[in-house]
Amino acid sequence: MQRFKLTIEYDGTAFVGWQRQENGMSVQEALETAVERYCQIKGQVFGAGRTDAGVHALAQVAHVDLPRNDRPEVVANALNAHLRPHLVSVLKAELVDGEFHARFSAVERGYEYRILNRRAPAALEAGKVWWIPAPLDAEAMHEAAQVLVGKHDFTTFRAAECQAESPVKTIDAIAVSRQAGMIVLTTRARSFLHHQVRNIVGTLRTVGEGKWTPRDVARALEARDRAAGGQTAPPTGLYLTHVKYPA
Amino acid sequence: MQRFKLTIEYDGTAFVGWQRQENGMSVQEALETAVERYCQIKGQVFGAGRTDAGVHALAQVAHVDLPRNDRPEVVANALNAHLRPHLVSVLKAELVDGEFHARFSAVERGYEYRILNRRAPAALEAGKVWWIPAPLDAEAMHEAAQVLVGKHDFTTFRAAECQAESPVKTIDAIAVSRQAGMIVLTTRARSFLHHQVRNIVGTLRTVGEGKWTPRDVARALEARDRAAGGQTAPPTGLYLTHVKYPA
Repeated sequence: MQRFKLTIEYDGTAFVGWQRQENGMSVQEALETAVERYCQIKGQVFGAGRTDAGVHALAQVAHVDLPRNDRPEVVANALNAHLRPHLVSVLKAELVDGEFHARFSAVERGYEYRILNRRAPAALEAGKVWWIPAPLDAEAMHEAAQVLVGKHDFTTFRAAECQAESPVKTIDAIAVSRQAGMIVLTTRARSFLHHQVRNIVGTLRTVGEGKWTPRDVARALEARDRAAGGQTAPPTGLYLTHVKYPA
Repeated sequence: MQRFKLTIEYDGTAFVGWQRQENGMSVQEALETAVERYCQIKGQVFGAGRTDAGVHALAQVAHVDLPRNDRPEVVANALNAHLRPHLVSVLKAELVDGEFHARFSAVERGYEYRILNRRAPAALEAGKVWWIPAPLDAEAMHEAAQVLVGKHDFTTFRAAECQAESPVKTIDAIAVSRQAGMIVLTTRARSFLHHQVRNIVGTLRTVGEGKWTPRDVARALEARDRAAGGQTAPPTGLYLTHVKYPA
């Protein structure tokens, strides 16, 4: 068996999320089905981040063990051929040693959240953004976001069903900027809690609307209570942008 | 009656094109239905460019006469509310005088064509690009495209069903550039023939593959014969980007 690291793009719209579930098609199942068609084995595909239903990926990372000596490019092309018509695309396959684990070896994950902030609803970007028609102050959102950078107890921004052992996480960076009608938030950390990015975005929206100040965000964080935070932003605007591993 | 100029974004995927047809939903019909719901009249919506099935618009322009004195923002919001769930969005409505005609007053139209040029198929950009896995030389495509700039008989690049009186058109500019895995062609002219941009893109692909030189493109143009040109690029990669009017 050879272990392959896969870098994967997907449109999360039609999926129940990354993880295999009874109630619909997952990205993992689409990949594992492609592996089965390609290699006639029931191989498990391990992902770095278990994205929710509707969440997209520009570069999710996964690994899988295959009974093949094919060149990595051949592996990527074969999986892509077997993945159609699912909107999942293997951007790159790389041979890695058996110690590599997509989830446990990862040292950084990056996410991007896109808000379409204009009066007109999304047409070309439908399903790929959160449409908020009322004007938001992106600079105020950026300033307030800095309160969340660093090591904190993120209970306020954690989904009830989150399975992480501890609510303490370290966010390395959050940036919010506007490009015409699009507000983009980018963030990176070793790992995130379930719904953490979406709950942060929902809270920053309140700042963008002028209803909350950075002080209010700090108070919400200190409360360590999900009820003290803002709404959970919809999955449609969220993208897993990268996963980093030790060199 | 008041005449309104509408600037419109749409995802062409689910439409039979701009123009009303018997065989399916058109962008024009979606807009005219919204006008009827909003104003209880059967108003005709005139578009600047009759985009084909699957072709998108970042900023199509249309006009319509409405029996309303509502402020333009109210008109845009009302049409957008009645347009759901169609992926057509009125970005802007403006009051114009009765002389304004979206199609006949236009002095320039701009198009963009997006080629996803990488081994991995489109996932997030599915339906929004032309996927070409073999590497293309964007600089060579740009150079060859310059042969087509200016006033020429574009019979080679004209669809058989084109209804224009003359095949002579003046292309003001064509630029081709690469941004990572995406090759983008932009072009502008007072007006274009039916399939002209798509036939140009299909021909430039041959240059990008290294099979044709700028001299071959010039020869194809001089042949004034559709059979001398390259294939018609698919509609999915084409976007109407702007329409200009006299100040």
